[in-house]
Amino acid sequence: MLIELRPGTSPEAAAEVATLAGEHEDVTAWPVELAGRVFVVVSGDESLARVPSSPAVLALRPTPDGHWLVRRESGVAPREVAIGDGIVGGPRLWWAAGPCALESAGDAVETALAVRAQGAHALRAGLSKTRSSPYHFPGKGARGLEALAEVRRAAAIPVITEVCDPREVEAFAEVADCLQVDGRQLDNRPLLAELGAQPRPVLLMRGPRASLDDWLRAAEFVLTRGNTAVVLCAGASGTPPQPGFGAIAALRARTGLPVVFDPSHSTRSASLVAPASLAAAAYGADGLLIESCRRPERMYRPGDAAHMFPPESLADLVAACERARDSARALAVPL
Amino acid sequence: MLIELRPGTSPEAAAEVATLAGEHEDVTAWPVELAGRVFVVVSGDESLARVPSSPAVLALRPTPDGHWLVRRESGVAPREVAIGDGIVGGPRLWWAAGPCALESAGDAVETALAVRAQGAHALRAGLSKTRSSPYHFPGKGARGLEALAEVRRAAAIPVITEVCDPREVEAFAEVADCLQVDGRQLDNRPLLAELGAQPRPVLLMRGPRASLDDWLRAAEFVLTRGNTAVVLCAGASGTPPQPGFGAIAALRARTGLPVVFDPSHSTRSASLVAPASLAAAAYGADGLLIESCRRPERMYRPGDAAHMFPPESLADLVAACERARDSARALAVPL
Amino acid sequence: MLIELRPGTSPEAAAEVATLAGEHEDVTAWPVELAGRVFVVVSGDESLARVPSSPAVLALRPTPDGHWLVRRESGVAPREVAIGDGIVGGPRLWWAAGPCALESAGDAVETALAVRAQGAHALRAGLSKTRSSPYHFPGKGARGLEALAEVRRAAAIPVITEVCDPREVEAFAEVADCLQVDGRQLDNRPLLAELGAQPRPVLLMRGPRASLDDWLRAAEFVLTRGNTAVVLCAGASGTPPQPGFGAIAALRARTGLPVVFDPSHSTRSASLVAPASLAAAAYGADGLLIESCRRPERMYRPGDAAHMFPPESLADLVAACERARDSARALAVPL
Amino acid sequence: MLIELRPGTSPEAAAEVATLAGEHEDVTAWPVELAGRVFVVVSGDESLARVPSSPAVLALRPTPDGHWLVRRESGVAPREVAIGDGIVGGPRLWWAAGPCALESAGDAVETALAVRAQGAHALRAGLSKTRSSPYHFPGKGARGLEALAEVRRAAAIPVITEVCDPREVEAFAEVADCLQVDGRQLDNRPLLAELGAQPRPVLLMRGPRASLDDWLRAAEFVLTRGNTAVVLCAGASGTPPQPGFGAIAALRARTGLPVVFDPSHSTRSASLVAPASLAAAAYGADGLLIESCRRPERMYRPGDAAHMFPPESLADLVAACERARDSARALAVPL
Repeated sequence: MLIELRPGTSPEAAAEVATLAGEHEDVTAWPVELAGRVFVVVSGDESLARVPSSPAVLALRPTPDGHWLVRRESGVAPREVAIGDGIVGGPRLWWAAGPCALESAGDAVETALAVRAQGAHALRAGLSKTRSSPYHFPGKGARGLEALAEVRRAAAIPVITEVCDPREVEAFAEVADCLQVDGRQLDNRPLLAELGAQPRPVLLMRGPRASLDDWLRAAEFVLTRGNTAVVLCAGASGTPPQPGFGAIAALRARTGLPVVFDPSHSTRSASLVAPASLAAAAYGADGLLIESCRRPERMYRPGDAAHMFPPESLADLVAACERARDSARALAVPL
Repeated sequence: MLIELRPGTSPEAAAEVATLAGEHEDVTAWPVELAGRVFVVVSGDESLARVPSSPAVLALRPTPDGHWLVRRESGVAPREVAIGDGIVGGPRLWWAAGPCALESAGDAVETALAVRAQGAHALRAGLSKTRSSPYHFPGKGARGLEALAEVRRAAAIPVITEVCDPREVEAFAEVADCLQVDGRQLDNRPLLAELGAQPRPVLLMRGPRASLDDWLRAAEFVLTRGNTAVVLCAGASGTPPQPGFGAIAALRARTGLPVVFDPSHSTRSASLVAPASLAAAAYGADGLLIESCRRPERMYRPGDAAHMFPPESLADLVAACERARDSARALAVPL
Repeated sequence: MLIELRPGTSPEAAAEVATLAGEHEDVTAWPVELAGRVFVVVSGDESLARVPSSPAVLALRPTPDGHWLVRRESGVAPREVAIGDGIVGGPRLWWAAGPCALESAGDAVETALAVRAQGAHALRAGLSKTRSSPYHFPGKGARGLEALAEVRRAAAIPVITEVCDPREVEAFAEVADCLQVDGRQLDNRPLLAELGAQPRPVLLMRGPRASLDDWLRAAEFVLTRGNTAVVLCAGASGTPPQPGFGAIAALRARTGLPVVFDPSHSTRSASLVAPASLAAAAYGADGLLIESCRRPERMYRPGDAAHMFPPESLADLVAACERARDSARALAVPL
Repeated sequence: MLIELRPGTSPEAAAEVATLAGEHEDVTAWPVELAGRVFVVVSGDESLARVPSSPAVLALRPTPDGHWLVRRESGVAPREVAIGDGIVGGPRLWWAAGPCALESAGDAVETALAVRAQGAHALRAGLSKTRSSPYHFPGKGARGLEALAEVRRAAAIPVITEVCDPREVEAFAEVADCLQVDGRQLDNRPLLAELGAQPRPVLLMRGPRASLDDWLRAAEFVLTRGNTAVVLCAGASGTPPQPGFGAIAALRARTGLPVVFDPSHSTRSASLVAPASLAAAAYGADGLLIESCRRPERMYRPGDAAHMFPPESLADLVAACERARDSARALAVPL
């Protein structure tokens, strides 16, 4: 249950509504301020939750699919999200590049300088990876924070890093400009709750098998904790997995949140990064997240060396994507 | 089992090899000439089939996945296929447009003139539709042959028409420039055999749930009967169905046959036809098959009115697709 | 559109209603008698089809999912179907066994005698197989009709045989007691139409990727041509394919037609035939279609030797299945 | 990389091997004792990990699919796992029942007494649920520990409870006899690591979209931290989701770990719990986890009331399952 309070409701009055709504021991309720408006989120069986008869209550917001805040019509989800000094969802195509995981700090600086020179708005370099094998490199974790900070400083570029463990969110948020969540963590509620309670923007990948509603519910989790700065990153979906470009257009109609695309993990082939990027742009993506690095031959295995796009072609790629996006807009047939 | 005979083997010698290879009552063998080479196709348990010790035998061609003739390395599958005076697989993007089914002949002429004026290489208008409901319009069938011939004459444009029944192939081939096969007919062996035994090019749609091998095996059926003029038409694939652009690139590596894309049935939305066409072009499609007609409001239901692309924008769409294809080629990263 | 006529409407009056309903050139309508009732099937755009204002018209039957005749509530689909002297859908579990394809006639007689001795109600031995590779044995076809007739006589057992080509239906129906349709032929409209126009019962396999509605629509095609004797045979479904036991229960709620299960092709392993048969019985199957033969080592490849269940254990298997079905019934929790 | 040390290697010697193997800053290595044998688990790029040339090293164990410890041939994964005083994987069918989530403590005691009276080996009652909507009851969490302890005492039955957050594992393990992990948490590495480092058995559900390898890798994570007491719980799988009975047999061939089945969440219908239980038993399940409670009408929504099996029929159900399992064994055809 989601209750919107009247504009100007004081924190004390909101807290009181939350206390009343969550009176039953199996109902939890908390106030949250989003986009200058005040809500009380109520978690629990609806027959037990109470809608207090308070003058502060403006409206009950329906959540039949488990989300409302993220929806376009709510007016809560922002159309533009800032990552460092870059804007995702603005008139220009935003893009970030870099290796999936931070490995050698020296190589990472070299890559960061190369992609910044091509015009990248951010560097992606994960400290933590969602790994299905216990024998594979899971990222440097907290040990790598200093190295990440150093890369960020040396190349003067915002950094995006992946986080898997709710206990690591706070520390990672001190260094990174944006926290990335793997699509296999969309049901990791404790992680999403921590991400909602910190100030950095969140880059939420689509799970390869997640429906649009699964994905939007995960974003909703983040918003219910107070953080509206969520960027959705589409990639492969379906069985067998294919680049899910259709999700870009489908989300545009449903949510205000910006949507970017990952042409690298969704194709797993360097030769398909350009076609997939052009396709994503034609489908209206707000940005691209491209696997790219110098010295892919030194990357740990199993890794992403096979689908690294050469840094020196990134600016050309992005320019071609801008043109494809413009073409598609000019040819748009209204629904 | 597939046996290639030496160049210059006479029809009589080929027939003799076939007779020997298919001596067992449960083995069938027949000679076929393809791309100036001579083969004997042997259908049946390999332990019963005999490879005759004839001097005419050049080599046994392996068919572990059920296909060899369609493969790039065979040299049999053509890179270019002519449909009327248009070439699929040549340097320029080939494209056809039109309604899924031929309904009013007058409207069809109007559409044919409109798409020809935009530069279309062919008109698509089906006489027979693969229908899952017995209560829906299945196409005019043979009754519509005269109308189709009239549209073809009046608009002076090659026509593509769908065929479902092996008993209709011969008659349809007399009028149409190309015969289209729905992706749900890839296992309709008798239909494919008839299509292989007539001279018109065959446009073979991908079944929404067909693997690339399922699809190539269906093409192989056509080739084993003597017809190499097969164009593969990719569309939606996977669960849930999504436009399967990846198939375009994957086929390029495996078969010489030209590959076109259907941006209309694969998206089922007029607003997605432009993005999907641009994406297909970026992925390297040889052509497009676009649902488009004048007067969509008069189309039978349930039908495709909802994803009709306006004829007057077709030339602009195709020009943008040519640019996207050029961009992708310029940015190509070798495998 | 489906129109039911009043009981006792004469054939002439029914034909007249059909003529009026199908007056438009793109609408086809025909009368059909089913379960002692009279219908007019109308195929085409509903805005063009006319419901004649005749006193013979009883009701318009809704077909939103493309089927009505097969539905339980129609009262048209029979609960019991006779195959030779066996009854599918009666109180006892019906079952048939045999090889997928008829190969050596001598071996087939041996198998037929073995399964009859175990209590089988029918022998399955296909004359035609839906083959995805042109190089594999597609069945004897019409050449095998005499051999099939001989096996039937020699073992005094009803025979079930597969048919793929609409041109073969008539001849196969003269010999076989039941015609089987592969699940990959559910969209082969011409084949289904021929099967509806002949008197033998039809065993309709589920396509591995067919929804229940796809399957029921294919059955509806058969009924609209006059034949209600359809048995549905469930097997593997979904991605990846798994034995689809749930379909048995789901169909029970939707259609009166009997539902049997194929534990062999749905598991592809002899070691799983017993578990899958027990599971199907627990889910309420009316029967089983079991791949079984003497001398599997002589079967053609690629074939089904790997999942042959030994004929001598069939009676024990079926008895255990009867017990599992009884247990499930005794434990049934009403919906 | 997984290194097995010689029997009798001292903890100090094992620690030394781990230190050497994990010398590189991006390689982590730790010793673990499992089933009386000593291993060093090495996590990181294999080219950086060192296999120390120590006499303590017995063998390098291959992990091509990301697992070795769980495999049948390793001899490490136990065939029997004790949950309280019940044995999963022994000669008798083990089974647990109860509600998905602990709600009213009074109702839970009533259910616990009812299922114990029917012979249940354990009660399932979750303190934490993997919830996709932030507005639904996520379980009592740590607040419910006292209530769970009270139910356990009052009904004198072992309890199984779900855990989602790595920070809750320690507290939950103090009360519960077994910790359950939702199938959507198989990629929640921090959670699995905590479960591996505590002494309670772990009940690991299959994710609805997890491959067998995904699932076994998650189990391997638990084992690599020192806990071999893992029970795999199969349920729905595939697209669309169906009860995945085949996984029971497939796992039997690959892992020694016991495999139980959840007939409730995999069917979502009370009327299908008996068929699915019988099917699972026929496929060789070691046990069942059945959703059952008194007073389902009082359960929170959205919840599992619709597929609650009546407690009073549980003993009959389990007896029928034992018979189906015996039948399948008697009819077993060796692979």
